[in-house]
Amino acid sequence: MTQLESAISGRITDEMKIVAESENIDPKRLKEEIAAGRVVIPKNIGHAFTPKGVGKGLCTKINANIGTSPSHCDIDEELNKLDVAVSAGADAVMDLSTGGDLDRTLAAILDHSPVMIGTVPIYKAMSRVLCANRKCPEMTEAELFSEIESQGKAGVDFITVHCGITRHSMKILESCDRMMGMVSRGGSLLAEWIVENDQENPLYEKFDRLLEIARAYDMTLSLGDGLRPGSIFDAQDRAQVTELVILGELAARSRAAGVQVMIEGPGHVPLGRIAGDMKLQQRICGQAPYYVLGPLPTDIGAGHDHITGAIGGAIAAANGADFLCYVTPAEHLSLPDVNDVREGVIASKIAAHIGDLEKGIASAWKQDRKMSQARKRLDWKTMIETAIDSEKALRMRDKSEDKDRDVCTMCGDFCAIKTYERATSHTKLDK
Amino acid sequence: MTQLESAISGRITDEMKIVAESENIDPKRLKEEIAAGRVVIPKNIGHAFTPKGVGKGLCTKINANIGTSPSHCDIDEELNKLDVAVSAGADAVMDLSTGGDLDRTLAAILDHSPVMIGTVPIYKAMSRVLCANRKCPEMTEAELFSEIESQGKAGVDFITVHCGITRHSMKILESCDRMMGMVSRGGSLLAEWIVENDQENPLYEKFDRLLEIARAYDMTLSLGDGLRPGSIFDAQDRAQVTELVILGELAARSRAAGVQVMIEGPGHVPLGRIAGDMKLQQRICGQAPYYVLGPLPTDIGAGHDHITGAIGGAIAAANGADFLCYVTPAEHLSLPDVNDVREGVIASKIAAHIGDLEKGIASAWKQDRKMSQARKRLDWKTMIETAIDSEKALRMRDKSEDKDRDVCTMCGDFCAIKTYERATSHTKLDK
Repeated sequence: MTQLESAISGRITDEMKIVAESENIDPKRLKEEIAAGRVVIPKNIGHAFTPKGVGKGLCTKINANIGTSPSHCDIDEELNKLDVAVSAGADAVMDLSTGGDLDRTLAAILDHSPVMIGTVPIYKAMSRVLCANRKCPEMTEAELFSEIESQGKAGVDFITVHCGITRHSMKILESCDRMMGMVSRGGSLLAEWIVENDQENPLYEKFDRLLEIARAYDMTLSLGDGLRPGSIFDAQDRAQVTELVILGELAARSRAAGVQVMIEGPGHVPLGRIAGDMKLQQRICGQAPYYVLGPLPTDIGAGHDHITGAIGGAIAAANGADFLCYVTPAEHLSLPDVNDVREGVIASKIAAHIGDLEKGIASAWKQDRKMSQARKRLDWKTMIETAIDSEKALRMRDKSEDKDRDVCTMCGDFCAIKTYERATSHTKLDK
Repeated sequence: MTQLESAISGRITDEMKIVAESENIDPKRLKEEIAAGRVVIPKNIGHAFTPKGVGKGLCTKINANIGTSPSHCDIDEELNKLDVAVSAGADAVMDLSTGGDLDRTLAAILDHSPVMIGTVPIYKAMSRVLCANRKCPEMTEAELFSEIESQGKAGVDFITVHCGITRHSMKILESCDRMMGMVSRGGSLLAEWIVENDQENPLYEKFDRLLEIARAYDMTLSLGDGLRPGSIFDAQDRAQVTELVILGELAARSRAAGVQVMIEGPGHVPLGRIAGDMKLQQRICGQAPYYVLGPLPTDIGAGHDHITGAIGGAIAAANGADFLCYVTPAEHLSLPDVNDVREGVIASKIAAHIGDLEKGIASAWKQDRKMSQARKRLDWKTMIETAIDSEKALRMRDKSEDKDRDVCTMCGDFCAIKTYERATSHTKLDK
């Protein structure tokens, strides 16, 4: 039974107990959220690790994408990125490899990872086709489903499947006069496949086949947003909304089949549209967990898109996004290196935490309270420990000439906390 | 005549012409905004540089704080920070020096700067007192006003004055049971002065004297938020709002006296309270330009508070903040070094730009359009040029193994833009 089927049947699984304990919520309530499809626990039955939940009432989770490309591939480097991502706070890692020995890379990552692992199976399926000197549209349906099945067997916890790229949604896209067309790798490969073969997307047409495979391994489906806007000019156009409606329908079918499902979201979105996008997804997709990439509220942040993404991500999480896919400083420019991975995870973590404060997550408020109490006491040790990135906070504190005093070099003797305490310690205004 | 007096009298000054041209707006409209107190042009009559405007209908401006501290002071380093801040996009720089030869440092910065310069005169006034082995409360009113006068004479364009720290607002603060008390350096020094001397804040009680000095040099007053929250737990409490009401009254008095005025704002503020804070300030202060520090929507970002500040700043600007004071990665930990200054300015610039998109600033949308069009063409040269930080974007692009191809190492042969173009170039779905 999948986690969803167990929840519907009223059974609290070991995974639910673990998640409920780590989130400090009632396991019964968690079970009900899972049964309603508002929470998922992405965990393949064949993959051993400590599971986490994604969805309503839980802390906002963050994902880090890693993976090789044909011009840059080294398994050890990817495992290092995985370690760095997890130690910086990633709750999930996606292996998006497209270069080198793909099976060996995925197996190494699954074996090494203490967190849930996601993939985009079309990448591997298409890479194999290209390696055999065939063209993308020559991939067969059987090859695609066989790749998905093999990833289920390997232990992948969640997969991105671009089921919303259909003949219908592509026609709508054609009429949209977009600035950027399609910017989803998987989505565009399927688009080409559909056009060249003059056939419907197998991930849509044979969705029941996909559900069967996903159910067998309790692989969570992450319904990809192949039509996500790649520019703020394209946000929430007819194409994006058409795909969302299709994903909403497929989410309902997934739940009916006992398959856990989340929805992927944009993309480039102007700040003022982010909250509305979150509410629309909740309505259209029956509150299925929303997994957003960014969003990026400007197109010109290249080199600092982890910051752009953190701005969008914080607003998204505050308005109900459940799962943030990180964006690194390398976004739009190059494959992220290990430092980019770290910067990306930290920026996402800040966004998720700010979202959690708005969601009223008690553990998040507790952290801020601890920090402010320590700051008031000028207790530097606790401040460093409580910082979202203790390692960097310590490094910056250590470069201060005042590091052995209780103040910092910023204010020195003009420390406001000390001055105010002096002012209020021995006299009151209303004496 | 000050810019405000000129505007009221119907005269369009050279400074207004320069600002109107750079903002691409009608000089007459700008003159009216200045006359109404919704826009200021902080420019001392004795300081020569190309002026910028701050306020309604204009691009969001950003300020970088620099300055020595007693344990870290080197004028050349500060001038280097100034250069780096300006080349990264700062519209204003505040000299917050408290160590070394204060007059010489300020004079060097004023002489060297191509942008408006602000200060917090109480820092220098108090530093002189401490240097003479006296205690802070021993500073005389005459010394404080003489320092302000001397800074006006030196050519300072805007000054932070904590006029809202009064016996009344301090009584309210005492009743608030704050997590962090007072975290404003200038505010806490005045609080101690008030308590120890059992007298009213001279900057409040003798506000007319302050107005006289400011008017003589057309020094813009930046009414400081001495009671800004230093923890998200303290945001928008009775103390903060009491001070805001006092500042609103003083803003009206400033305008009546022909003195340009802006209002300073928080501080640490939960994400969900930022928009409301902006609207409240606009109402209470007659739409005087709002100059915000951050805001920081979490307390635990130490080491990455430039990101925390960019999240809050973007939302603040989108909701009407006119001027963002940068926050650097060193915030809460140490005096920022030159790299921190650069990171802080870039993060603020991203926030300001995202705010400008929401404000409907045409030049901001033009930049995003240019970037997306270049991205669509895979025109890397234009993408690098259009990025908010071209220098870093180029560095990251250059580390990519695919830098000499038209794609990037992230997607390589799976470039979505190319795939989608291939798919749509020779066949249509509705053929």
